[in-house]
Amino acid sequence: MKEVVAGIDIGGTNTVFGLVDKTGNILAENSLKTTDYPEIKNFVSALAAAINKLVEGKSNLKLAGIGIGAPNANYHKGTIELAPNLAWKGIVPLAEYIRKKIDVPVIVTNDANAAAMGEMIFGGAKKMKDFIILTLGTGLGSGIVINGEVVYGHTGFAGELGHTIVVPGGRDCGCGRQGCYETYASASGLVRTVLYMLSEMREESSLRDIPPSELTAKKIAEAAAKKDPIAVEALDYTAEILAFGIANAIGFSSPEAVFLFGGLAQAGEMLFIPTRKYVDQNVQPIFKGTVKILPSGVPESNAAVLGAAALAWNELKK
Amino acid sequence: MKEVVAGIDIGGTNTVFGLVDKTGNILAENSLKTTDYPEIKNFVSALAAAINKLVEGKSNLKLAGIGIGAPNANYHKGTIELAPNLAWKGIVPLAEYIRKKIDVPVIVTNDANAAAMGEMIFGGAKKMKDFIILTLGTGLGSGIVINGEVVYGHTGFAGELGHTIVVPGGRDCGCGRQGCYETYASASGLVRTVLYMLSEMREESSLRDIPPSELTAKKIAEAAAKKDPIAVEALDYTAEILAFGIANAIGFSSPEAVFLFGGLAQAGEMLFIPTRKYVDQNVQPIFKGTVKILPSGVPESNAAVLGAAALAWNELKK
Repeated sequence: MKEVVAGIDIGGTNTVFGLVDKTGNILAENSLKTTDYPEIKNFVSALAAAINKLVEGKSNLKLAGIGIGAPNANYHKGTIELAPNLAWKGIVPLAEYIRKKIDVPVIVTNDANAAAMGEMIFGGAKKMKDFIILTLGTGLGSGIVINGEVVYGHTGFAGELGHTIVVPGGRDCGCGRQGCYETYASASGLVRTVLYMLSEMREESSLRDIPPSELTAKKIAEAAAKKDPIAVEALDYTAEILAFGIANAIGFSSPEAVFLFGGLAQAGEMLFIPTRKYVDQNVQPIFKGTVKILPSGVPESNAAVLGAAALAWNELKK
Repeated sequence: MKEVVAGIDIGGTNTVFGLVDKTGNILAENSLKTTDYPEIKNFVSALAAAINKLVEGKSNLKLAGIGIGAPNANYHKGTIELAPNLAWKGIVPLAEYIRKKIDVPVIVTNDANAAAMGEMIFGGAKKMKDFIILTLGTGLGSGIVINGEVVYGHTGFAGELGHTIVVPGGRDCGCGRQGCYETYASASGLVRTVLYMLSEMREESSLRDIPPSELTAKKIAEAAAKKDPIAVEALDYTAEILAFGIANAIGFSSPEAVFLFGGLAQAGEMLFIPTRKYVDQNVQPIFKGTVKILPSGVPESNAAVLGAAALAWNELKK
């Protein structure tokens, strides 16, 4: 029998899951629509059945554990709490519900912490004990590893860098406050920066022909690659704020590397080069040159399942 | 034979040291003038002799280890590196030098990390696994504990919150940058804030009669206790910036408590009450009400020796 774990990524729209062996091979995967299950118990039943089916579909597999990345997940309690993008309200004891259906260890955390674990077990941080991963999508998620362990903190919710304030009195954030890191340093933050630059600058730009509701980080990166002045300026400013937050995080935990992941990171060297420059300008002298700014070493398409699986493998190791 | 450790605090002017038992009793102590020893080897010889003398002065003591708090100390390497306030230049292998004189485990870190260890072993954080201590003196030092361990990071210098930037483009800092946390949230930051308030506000104030070079946090706190309007306003603003940095730190590591220590913390409830209010206003909703803001549980007069001793006891436990 070959041991595998199930890695599950619960998103607002889709839930994807796969069986992953110890070296990070995905042996089988599937998905279901999260929105088809407004009742959590029905969701758990469908998910458990689908995982059992995956295991039975292959010969000689033994399911050793389950790792789950989900919004507002509490590692200590195995719960999802007050997640704004999910239909299940209040505090959902997800790990407990799943264990009732499949009796193996079930570990729950948010997607950014799962990404950190994925990076450490299967990605670019295999030999690192201190690093940070920033997931730069619609928001900014962060997973922080110190002394080889993901930081969950007293509440189980640690590592919420996206809602640390980097511009006091700055942009409105979905959390109800102003100037949060993710309102600048994320794919949607880049879009907001372009809109601001369009208001401030007089240069011609292909981005003036795209309705704001259709602007994406990808389109902006494409324009920047063609030297569009607004796109170039917006990427540079985004890198500056991203680097400002990274420099302050370095003062906190002095990591060996910061990994960038997600839609904004897809801009590649156009983002990484100015980010490295601004980190170097902003960081305390004592930390100059001590931190690598790197793209994630986990392929974007498999990252969610691999991260969640890594969570389970890490727990089984203990 | 009763086991004790030596706790040593190396400052720019004085070095104080004491023998401390497992429960935090200081059995003997002494000091020497750091500035009397421009050569590190002479300093180490004098210090080792003085410690041996303390041990021999009591009957039945066995020295089990040595803990040292010192500026710019590197825990991983046992070194002091490029300390601006010490005469010993370059990289000083302090632990190694001391071990050659006294053959016991020697642990080195900066004073704020030692204070964190003191708080955990002998103070108010005995049952805590996740907390932060801020030492608010001439500068702002910070010791961060996560999962029951002081955070040293990849370089050994982690936990430098005093030089994270909280006001971009703000006050000049001794580190050569602008807007560092310690230029606002420290005893000397409070003095700077009073000078600013004296320029901005027209209210009468007893602080207008004190030459700026003689202003201290203590005098300002005394004036605030008498409702001096400038002193009150300055303490409130200091609490606001202090709280802003605390709120961001909470987003990072979600501690159970933040301890405040040092000259500025001596202002007591005049500082703690507004600080708690502003932390509550600034913190992410998910962390509201989860963090206690507390005075240090270690007496200020013994804190340096006890912190350094705690460092040694913690290492011997491993």
